[in-house]
Amino acid sequence: MDEQAKKTALRMIPYGLQVLGVSDGKELDVASINWTTQVSFQPPLVVVGVKKDSKPFGILKNGRKFALSFLESGQRDLAYAFFKSVAPANGKFGDYAYETAETGCPIISDAAAWVEAEVVSIDETGDHAAVIGRVINAGLKREAKPLTLAELGVNYGG
Amino acid sequence: MDEQAKKTALRMIPYGLQVLGVSDGKELDVASINWTTQVSFQPPLVVVGVKKDSKPFGILKNGRKFALSFLESGQRDLAYAFFKSVAPANGKFGDYAYETAETGCPIISDAAAWVEAEVVSIDETGDHAAVIGRVINAGLKREAKPLTLAELGVNYGG
Repeated sequence: MDEQAKKTALRMIPYGLQVLGVSDGKELDVASINWTTQVSFQPPLVVVGVKKDSKPFGILKNGRKFALSFLESGQRDLAYAFFKSVAPANGKFGDYAYETAETGCPIISDAAAWVEAEVVSIDETGDHAAVIGRVINAGLKREAKPLTLAELGVNYGG
Repeated sequence: MDEQAKKTALRMIPYGLQVLGVSDGKELDVASINWTTQVSFQPPLVVVGVKKDSKPFGILKNGRKFALSFLESGQRDLAYAFFKSVAPANGKFGDYAYETAETGCPIISDAAAWVEAEVVSIDETGDHAAVIGRVINAGLKREAKPLTLAELGVNYGG
């Protein structure tokens, strides 16, 4: 396989930025992710790619549920804040307040919109797990243009 | 669940446009899709959402392999050409020439880049199947800005 062609081709998939929120009833964690797509209307299903050797993935596997907070164009600092792990304290992860809804998974309060999902299946073939979740709850703070990897000027893929 | 919030939230996932190409050794077919994300670097895995009651999905299930042709900004007509099924004739689907590489799945010759994948798993929980494929081959015609659903001014998701 032509590795450079593979990298360039796969980087033609556009991505937005979401904050994955996980809870297993004991621990909460968040992480910025971008490997996200819907895969069904009925029931509403999403797939997220989650790094298998990350703390959030361990919690997600235990808790079998997750939240996605959809970031808005301009929220660069928010996205970068959760590229590394941050422990929650006083209702915040670092500088960012969070809230919870039905699943108990953390939702970033400043995000434009969010969904919560129950895990349907986890495929661990790769270095990131492909987690399929059934969307069971959603909230909208405001209609907004999504923050994209292109806006950040970075790639995560290829 | 607030259905309108769910729709608006899920439409904050940006999408590109790809032409899915499938073959089972007897039949070839193509379809424009957008529910696509990478889910692993090593091995390189992608997930695509494919409508379960479509002809391409039946062929994909039989053949256990697929190609993705990545469309470039401006290729609106190409994307629209394969929103409906078109039978191949004389090396073309409709007006568009195709070629094949390792898997025999059709690759649209005008696309900017392509990958071929072997199916790792298929989750049929929803109205679209979540098909995980391992990328085994790739080609680059030219580096290009991807065609997006936003450029087409349409949504497929929510």
